Amino acid sequence: MFGKRTSIEQVEEGSEFAPRFDAQGLIPAVTTDYQTGELLMHGYMNRDALARTIETGEAHYYSRSRQTLWHKGATSGLVQRVRELLVDDDQDCVWLRVDVTGGASCHVGYRSCFYRRVPTGETARAGRPLELEFTETQKVFDPEEVYKGAPNPTKL
Amino acid sequence: MFGKRTSIEQVEEGSEFAPRFDAQGLIPAVTTDYQTGELLMHGYMNRDALARTIETGEAHYYSRSRQTLWHKGATSGLVQRVRELLVDDDQDCVWLRVDVTGGASCHVGYRSCFYRRVPTGETARAGRPLELEFTETQKVFDPEEVYKGAPNPTKL
Repeated sequence: MFGKRTSIEQVEEGSEFAPRFDAQGLIPAVTTDYQTGELLMHGYMNRDALARTIETGEAHYYSRSRQTLWHKGATSGLVQRVRELLVDDDQDCVWLRVDVTGGASCHVGYRSCFYRRVPTGETARAGRPLELEFTETQKVFDPEEVYKGAPNPTKL
Repeated sequence: MFGKRTSIEQVEEGSEFAPRFDAQGLIPAVTTDYQTGELLMHGYMNRDALARTIETGEAHYYSRSRQTLWHKGATSGLVQRVRELLVDDDQDCVWLRVDVTGGASCHVGYRSCFYRRVPTGETARAGRPLELEFTETQKVFDPEEVYKGAPNPTKL
């Protein structure tokens, strides 16, 4: 399904899809909400996950913590329908613009995984240590109910 | 400047900024346009790049191809001013919402690095091999003029 990478010109200026997978066989995937543009999550795909995403139009990732193909929403029901898939200049990253069934994408229960703001510039210099500020205060779902007994994927 | 990671609860639900750098000392950074929400680029930061981004309010990355700190726009003038910086649930990815001086972020000359669409679903199944479709047709600048003599960072 994927092209062979033969030249910089082909990769950057061509119309052949020739994604680059890293030494672990993965490509980063950036997922935003189609309507609002909000960044929902940052994940990884292997060849299989990317192929299934393209074929089915639903987001599939590779779970590094569980080391397995991951059809987003298979457990939680929070499926991501791909409205548009884009690739970057050197084809080592893909961008998914999605509609989310159920309105949440984060395993902690928030709409987006990016629910905390880091201070920058003057604010940062004034207020050491850096204090995160919550941008979402209400969880969309209760993760303990949705992921009953499943281990938390976060690694320290 | 960065906190120590001590528990999943602290990392996911706390207000201490304790980013996780991978085995190469890097954290992925997703950069979108503050006004339009468009994904401009996907890069990486080391501790130094993240600290400088926070302190100066201008995006700094770590260039993996040049293996050096990279103040975005130092060569091209296309500086990214950070309007908002966010971190994800397990704090292993940051999101920069920026204004771009000069209106372009891609070394190929386009506004965004993501200027090609990959077919999905029925369109993909009908049209093998997969053909990319350009979403931007006009370059904002001429890379040969802006990056005179500099090596292209794209790796095959």
